[in-house]
This record gives sequence, C-alpha cells and structure tokens, in this order.
Amino acid sequence: MRDLIERVFAEAFDSPLLREMHDGTVVDLPSGRIAMTTDSYVVKPLFFPGGGIGTLAVNGTVNDLAMCGAKPLYLTVGFILEEGLEIEVLQRIAQSMKEAAIAAGVSIITGDTKVVDKGKGDGIYINTAGVGIVPENVKISPRRVKAGGVVILSGDIGRHGIAVISAREGLNFETTIQSDCAPLAAPVAALIEKGIEIHCLRDLTRGGLATALVEIAESAKIGMEIVEANIPVLEEVSAACEIMGFDPLYIANEGRFIGFVPEEEAEKTVEILQQYPVSQDAVIIGKVVEDGDNMVRMKTLYGSSRIIDMLSGEQLPRIC
Amino acid sequence: MRDLIERVFAEAFDSPLLREMHDGTVVDLPSGRIAMTTDSYVVKPLFFPGGGIGTLAVNGTVNDLAMCGAKPLYLTVGFILEEGLEIEVLQRIAQSMKEAAIAAGVSIITGDTKVVDKGKGDGIYINTAGVGIVPENVKISPRRVKAGGVVILSGDIGRHGIAVISAREGLNFETTIQSDCAPLAAPVAALIEKGIEIHCLRDLTRGGLATALVEIAESAKIGMEIVEANIPVLEEVSAACEIMGFDPLYIANEGRFIGFVPEEEAEKTVEILQQYPVSQDAVIIGKVVEDGDNMVRMKTLYGSSRIIDMLSGEQLPRIC
Repeated sequence: MRDLIERVFAEAFDSPLLREMHDGTVVDLPSGRIAMTTDSYVVKPLFFPGGGIGTLAVNGTVNDLAMCGAKPLYLTVGFILEEGLEIEVLQRIAQSMKEAAIAAGVSIITGDTKVVDKGKGDGIYINTAGVGIVPENVKISPRRVKAGGVVILSGDIGRHGIAVISAREGLNFETTIQSDCAPLAAPVAALIEKGIEIHCLRDLTRGGLATALVEIAESAKIGMEIVEANIPVLEEVSAACEIMGFDPLYIANEGRFIGFVPEEEAEKTVEILQQYPVSQDAVIIGKVVEDGDNMVRMKTLYGSSRIIDMLSGEQLPRIC
Repeated sequence: MRDLIERVFAEAFDSPLLREMHDGTVVDLPSGRIAMTTDSYVVKPLFFPGGGIGTLAVNGTVNDLAMCGAKPLYLTVGFILEEGLEIEVLQRIAQSMKEAAIAAGVSIITGDTKVVDKGKGDGIYINTAGVGIVPENVKISPRRVKAGGVVILSGDIGRHGIAVISAREGLNFETTIQSDCAPLAAPVAALIEKGIEIHCLRDLTRGGLATALVEIAESAKIGMEIVEANIPVLEEVSAACEIMGFDPLYIANEGRFIGFVPEEEAEKTVEILQQYPVSQDAVIIGKVVEDGDNMVRMKTLYGSSRIIDMLSGEQLPRIC
C-alpha cells in the first residue's frame, strides 16, 4: 500500500508539499473569501475519446470553482481502488491528473488512497475537492439572475455524454466524438478581470443544459426564453443522439457553461469568451424574463414553443 | 437522485450555505495559512460500537487538520452510494455526520453524491476534505522532531480497530469494546494557545502507534526509545488482540495521537491534555534520540529491547 502510494503518486504528483507525507498540507492563502467544492468521479469506462476519469476529476472540480467566480488554487484527491486494478492503469490516470492540473493552473497538494476488495468497486473511483480564491467584487449566485438579463452558452453541447456512452457501449459512429472535458477557469477569470457584471455561472454537467436552465429558473424565481436555433450542436452529436434516442439538451458536458449577464454587457461577454479556445463558440441563446411559473420556454427550430423541464426518466448513469 | 439529495441531506445538513444548492460554496476566511486534507472512508461494517462511517468521516478529517496544528473550519463531503442502499441507513449516517460536525465545531459546506450500480460498491463510501486555519506561530512538521525531545501519547490504544473487526466478524468479548473515534481539535488548540512548542503531531490511524513512530523517525532522521510499560492498553483490548493474533501497536485508532515536544515542556503538555476527556490519559511514552539507523526501539514489559518496524504483512483491511 505504502509502496504503491510512494511509487505511483510521488512520481506523478511530485511536489515539495506532497513529499512531506504528512496527514494534510499547509499552504499560504491571501485573505478574503474562498470557494470550496467537491465531486466524486465514477465514470465508466475509465478512458474515453477526449479524456478519462483523471482529467475529469481535475477539470470537474476546477470548473465548479470557476463557476463560483473563484480562481482555482489547490486540489485534494482521494482514490478508492478496487483490488486487482492494474498498476499501469493507475499510473496512466495519475499522469493524466498531473497534466490536467498543470493545464488548469492548480496544485494537487494532498491525497489519500483506500483499497476495497474485489467486487466492491469498479476499478477506481476518484474524489477531488478544491479551494479557490474569490475576487472581492465577484458576487455570483442563482439569486442574482434577473429579468432583462441575457443567457450565454460557451460552446456546442452534448459531446462528453455521447463520447462516454459510445466508449462504454462500443458504438462506432462515422467520426469519433471527443469529450469536451476542459478547464473553464481562464475564460471566467477574463470576464471578471474585464469587469463584466456576472450574475450567475453554471457548468452543464449532469443533466446538461436543460437541467442547468431549469434549476437556475427555479432558484432565481424567473423565467427564460431560449432560442433553439442558437444552441450549437455538432452534426455527429445530433446524429448519435437521434440513433440512441437522447436529447442533446440533457446530455452531460464537462467543458461547457452558461453565464447570466446584463443585456448591455452581453456582446462584450461573448467577445471575451470567444478569445479562448474552450469557449470560442460562445453565443447568446436567450433572455431572462418575468414568469410567475418560473418556466424555461424554448422557441424550437420549427417555430413552436416548448417548455423545458427536468428530465423525468433515468439520466445516463456514471457519465462523470 | 435530486429528490434524494434534497430530502436526506437538506434535512441533516440544513444550512444557509447548502441551501444555495450551487456547485460550490463561498465562505470567508481570515488571511494566513490554511491546512487542507482529504480522506475516503470505506469502513466495514457501516456501524460499530462507538461510531460509524459517518462519525469516522467527520472526525478523521477533523483530526488530520488538527495534526497540522490547524483549527478545523469547513468540510466537504462526497458520497458514493451503491444502488439499493436503504434510505434509513443513509439518513442515520447523515444524522451522525451532522452531530459529529457540531461536536467538532466544523461546518459541512458543500457535497456531492454519486450512485454506482449494485455490486460496484459496498453500500456507501464517503470522502471528506477539510480546510482549517493554521495559527501564525505554529510550525508542525516531522522534520522538526529532534533528539532530546519527548514522545507523548494521548491515551489508550487499539480500541477502534478491535471494535470494527469484532463487529465485522460478529465476535463477542465479555465487554463490548467501543471505538475511540473522537475529534482531537480541542486539546491540540489548547496546546497551541498555551504556547507549547509542538514539533510534530500525528494521529494513530492506519498502522497504529508503531507505524506513526516509524514514519516520523524516518522523516525526521532520528531514533526513538519507547517504554512499553507506559503505553496504555485496555485489558479487554489486550485480551482480544491475543485471541485474534494482533499486536495493539499496529491497530488503528481514530481518537488518539502522539505529540513531540521539547523535554522541558513535556510535563506541561501532559497536564493540558489531561484536562480534555479525549486525552485524559495522556502520558509520556518515550524520547527522541540520535540514531544513524533511525530506529524506534522499545523497552518491553519483560525488560528486553524490541525494534519497532513497519508491519510487513497485511494490515487489517477496511478499518476506516
């Protein structure tokens, strides 16, 4: 056990902090507000086109911090390994986490490993928790979303979920659909730096775009009017969804978010986002309106109006 | 899923922070150094005399922060639930976490829940990560342990491991052995407040007292001389160890720690610790010495000298 930790993790995560091998790690932090978040990752399979459980575990938590308007700084990582997991798989995952952490500008500063008996896990589960610093002027909360504001989407939707489910089921489409898994901290930091008055941000993970919109409408007690024609979906994602009977609106993404800003700042927001590869297809998809029922209405491609609801059936399991 | 989270967790962990239901939580923090730590908990069975996976998940992380000299403040919690886990079990665990958090003076500020298919988990696994504030004058590190210092043990050892293994195997001893699972932050804070120059602290979890001593000797590049007669072990724990073929030195504890302090502060340290129920049996068990081989030597009850080594065989699995 100890040998395993020392070999694999010390190699991948080598840092003066981890080398101390103490129960926890002490770091300096500027005063002010911090954001904290945690997520466990149980994605199946462990690797998929465009990423794997390791990149997901880093980017997912980095993105949750970014959605609080925080600059992500430090991550903790907890591994639950199933007895019999191949050491090469663990090394590959650790290496991918190291690379993802560097790309996202965060440090993995402490960790823990537990091993469970064969048949009591599924290879590996990973938890990451993260801490970031929230700049003083930032006040991001669903409750700040107000009628008159604009809804901005950072890019095309549906790729992560389709990439994972295709890999899991061994489906082959004409083109391989890559997950959009990526860190979102840089474009968010740019918005804050440029003084955009962000009301709320939300990444489009479990439940996809639709769930994020509905949750925020409920929290903020407002309605939304969304224009389907403005929502980018890759043709191959549309086709895959049609074949499998999914609606791209409900598919999980791991590198996409929506932002709510005042109407007068919408154009500037889109311009800033488009300067970053991860959000280069950012677009205005709708507006926030008064609505006593807090409904999200979508003008469909066919011109009709559709009410967007929570997914009532089963969501895709173990997609993240 | 969403319904489950809202019902069980909002009930147990109700707080203005969690009620926001955002991806992460923003909190105020005084400037300075923070300690961060994480642990996953996979203990089997989920409940045992003196505690359960919930109390363990709170106290374990609180104690890791305390061992950094930090005042524990905020916890995150990640649940991995196996499909089919009874809702009553989850409620009982959530309730125990709430109570443990109150007792330890920490707030659970954000969380995550994942569900895995039946046969891919074992009821429930919990990860907690924690953040605490480290007072300015505190410098706790294995590297600060120096020859001439004294080793202090906070109480009797071996109870947690024996309580768990007895519950798992359905063993009945004459008296029920209760886990020592408890938060250690209060006595540590008292030592810091009273100005004790603490070189290092370490809680005696996986691998027990022996492993903690050996690890610190290796990190600090010193030796230790321990007096077995000074190490408190309950009679029923000794008896259970004898029956099951365990050595109490290697049994996991969840409410015990060792502290390294200068010799001239040893008596005062013990006096302070003894004022807290969780460390009322604190005692000096040995001293730090120069040793080129970084050996931990123990004077046994029979007067002989025994070298304390890392456990070479299997440790008890899934004890925490």
